Amino acid sequence: MSSKDLGISVKKNEDMSEWYTQVVTKAQLADYSGAKGFMVLMPYGFSIWERIKEYFDKSIKAIGHRNAYFPLLIPERLLKKESEHFTGFTPEVFWVTQSGDTVIGERLAIRPTSETVINESYSKWVKSWRDLPILINVWNSVVRAEITSTRPFLRTTEFLWQEGHTVHATEQEAETEVMTILNLYKLLTESQLAIPVLTGKKTEKEKFKGAVYTTTLEAMMPDGKAIQMGTSHHLGQNFSKPFEIKYLGSDEKEHYAWTTSWGISWRLIGAMILAHGDDKGLILPPQIAPLQVVLVPIFYKEDDRANILEETNTLAKALERAGVRIYLDDRTQYTPGWKYNEWEMKGVPIRVEIGPRDLKSGQVTLVRRDNGKKLQVARGAASEQIMKILGEIQHFLFSRAKDALDQLTETASDMETLRKTVEGKGGFVKAFLCDKLTCEEGIQHDTGATVRLVPFEKGESGNCISCGSKEGKLVYFARSY
Amino acid sequence: MSSKDLGISVKKNEDMSEWYTQVVTKAQLADYSGAKGFMVLMPYGFSIWERIKEYFDKSIKAIGHRNAYFPLLIPERLLKKESEHFTGFTPEVFWVTQSGDTVIGERLAIRPTSETVINESYSKWVKSWRDLPILINVWNSVVRAEITSTRPFLRTTEFLWQEGHTVHATEQEAETEVMTILNLYKLLTESQLAIPVLTGKKTEKEKFKGAVYTTTLEAMMPDGKAIQMGTSHHLGQNFSKPFEIKYLGSDEKEHYAWTTSWGISWRLIGAMILAHGDDKGLILPPQIAPLQVVLVPIFYKEDDRANILEETNTLAKALERAGVRIYLDDRTQYTPGWKYNEWEMKGVPIRVEIGPRDLKSGQVTLVRRDNGKKLQVARGAASEQIMKILGEIQHFLFSRAKDALDQLTETASDMETLRKTVEGKGGFVKAFLCDKLTCEEGIQHDTGATVRLVPFEKGESGNCISCGSKEGKLVYFARSY
Repeated sequence: MSSKDLGISVKKNEDMSEWYTQVVTKAQLADYSGAKGFMVLMPYGFSIWERIKEYFDKSIKAIGHRNAYFPLLIPERLLKKESEHFTGFTPEVFWVTQSGDTVIGERLAIRPTSETVINESYSKWVKSWRDLPILINVWNSVVRAEITSTRPFLRTTEFLWQEGHTVHATEQEAETEVMTILNLYKLLTESQLAIPVLTGKKTEKEKFKGAVYTTTLEAMMPDGKAIQMGTSHHLGQNFSKPFEIKYLGSDEKEHYAWTTSWGISWRLIGAMILAHGDDKGLILPPQIAPLQVVLVPIFYKEDDRANILEETNTLAKALERAGVRIYLDDRTQYTPGWKYNEWEMKGVPIRVEIGPRDLKSGQVTLVRRDNGKKLQVARGAASEQIMKILGEIQHFLFSRAKDALDQLTETASDMETLRKTVEGKGGFVKAFLCDKLTCEEGIQHDTGATVRLVPFEKGESGNCISCGSKEGKLVYFARSY
Repeated sequence: MSSKDLGISVKKNEDMSEWYTQVVTKAQLADYSGAKGFMVLMPYGFSIWERIKEYFDKSIKAIGHRNAYFPLLIPERLLKKESEHFTGFTPEVFWVTQSGDTVIGERLAIRPTSETVINESYSKWVKSWRDLPILINVWNSVVRAEITSTRPFLRTTEFLWQEGHTVHATEQEAETEVMTILNLYKLLTESQLAIPVLTGKKTEKEKFKGAVYTTTLEAMMPDGKAIQMGTSHHLGQNFSKPFEIKYLGSDEKEHYAWTTSWGISWRLIGAMILAHGDDKGLILPPQIAPLQVVLVPIFYKEDDRANILEETNTLAKALERAGVRIYLDDRTQYTPGWKYNEWEMKGVPIRVEIGPRDLKSGQVTLVRRDNGKKLQVARGAASEQIMKILGEIQHFLFSRAKDALDQLTETASDMETLRKTVEGKGGFVKAFLCDKLTCEEGIQHDTGATVRLVPFEKGESGNCISCGSKEGKLVYFARSY
């Protein structure tokens, strides 16, 4: 890649869409693929996904969940078992109809999500109250036809995700699971990705097809559009009944079980790019960054070489021992300036430079990716300083995103304000809305904004912003990715 | 599950096929699924796969490989680019022809393997010698229509695997990669799964479709059938030419690159079940066992309860601190006998029993899963003893499998001996074979045995066992899974 290709040619706040595409490809996170709508997750992007996976996998295993794998293909008859679910997903399904030269008798759907195939197994596995709860998670990919244009991470036909599927003896337990997972998702996005989120329920219109209700995490991007970060569904007995997931209780009677499902996908990476990046490229929160520190030794004269490399190596080793994820960039085919650009594009939180002047003064130069500030620190204190600054960067990115969220949250009590805000700076607009589908649809039709969530807290009711009826509940509107 | 369902109803050496199916389902490794040929990998089976993944992932990352993800679906035009590859795989391919209600213009293949879609990306990514080598691995699933009957782990339409795909500047480097990976596979199967393997090349007839040559690892199962444990392919320029993977060398000239691919799948788990299991169920090598030690506290009187639980807990903690993977089975709804059966079925290497008598004598009882031996050890020495025995079990399982391999390896110098051995006890039969396809095919037709491998070492030549010509090379025949 020549150095003129390395930079981003547009400013983030001038053309965020083009900026985003350039960051994704130039930071080598992802690439387009030959099949329309499909994306290649490149090694650097995958290593971010691995960090997300590792963190969340530990979180759920710590509370008793286990991983498994279920088939890619779902016979049509199975997909049809829960009718709302089938109707909801069928326009998006990819159908396998041939194997080799043979036409297959019953069409097979590539899983758009695995409720049906998993509940089919659960109906065999669950017999007694002793078999419950079942707490299973799957890391896989799913495929849903995307009619609109592809956006890496945010809108792709195939995406990597995790889907959790649990079975419980009681409704209460299932509802607790839904909230436990939602809270773990919030912890992931806020403590790791440094993205503040709002949580709440989806409306009937926006819920998962087949759920009793859907809970959601919503984040706000700098362009005023919301992004759904994950969902956790209470499925009630909507699946356990058609799939006959029944257990013999300790009361010696048969009961239908209660199920949940929940998922987050690689779109978290898309949100992270949008939330934190700047005109130079990606900015990664230290917690999630595959590389937290890159060390660049600089020498112009061959005489300095050995000493500078030795000093850089010593610091690199100290950081590794402290558990910091580092890369010592001693590649000789690139200049220091080229390396700075590359690692800034790739969003590495701290760059350490060690050059002849640093060598003499017994210092190293640290450059923060989040605010660009340079500072000199004594070599002996470098490791400790770096650890401290990594924490500061994590905190700073979250605060900055939190400020942006606050500034992009308004309240509207009339349609004119709602429309103006949505069409202007965007962001969340809080308003009262009644339960009538026509009100919700009307606003979406007029403004492009949908109800992102209904807060969990039962607040006072007010006049519906659309029809004026008194039964309006507080909701958050926004346009969204 | 009632206790009568828990045991296996046939002996391993009387009906290995039925024995295998029962172990797989009763140890809760895997289950059949609604779609023919597809298998559900249950949590216990998945946790074994996770151990294999974790070990091998570290091995290849340590030498510079990185993970990525490539699309599930491959447009037909791409799959066709390497003609031998296309012809080889096309009878097994599942085709997507519809998206929702719409017929798709160009059929999309579910990947049977990803050479084509990955090389399409590589042709974009490789420009200069500076971009090489590319060392990428993918953990995913692939789908190949299976016409014969399903056998969990061994013969399934969809299977989990890893596929590595590398690009190199020179033929030499590519060939070194092929062997490096083959050796890492051997290390995995021998040091972790405790299964000895032979390595060598496949014949032209048996090689991967599209490869210059294929190297393989072959293990021998107790029923005399071989199992292919993994393959590593030198693809030469067979893919780089049609896909135009070219780089500008430091000589300022354009060169076609050299590529490799390699894979192991969940069939390793199938081999491990067959190699080590016994009439009571699974026997897992300690290195790969998700649980290495299960601790069962035993109390008949409520008085003993607190003391016994405390002792069990103390030992459990000590083992955990020592890095041993343990489970303290203090479930109250099951009897100790029921638990013994369950954990024997699931192949946990060591069971620790702590009962009233052990409490009094200051001892614990250890039961080895591999040979059933019981021993009492002083509680203070238990942790150290357990570590030692885990090592012994690992070693014992490997030696036993190695002995079985040796006893199932014969030499034949005439067709009668070859046929008799193959049709009798089975195993590997070493014999000389010439290069003529008719000789190789004739033997397969007559005996059901194929050439499993050609040893790497160039030995003397001999008379072809089929046609008697002088150009016979030493090969290993066997029937196989």
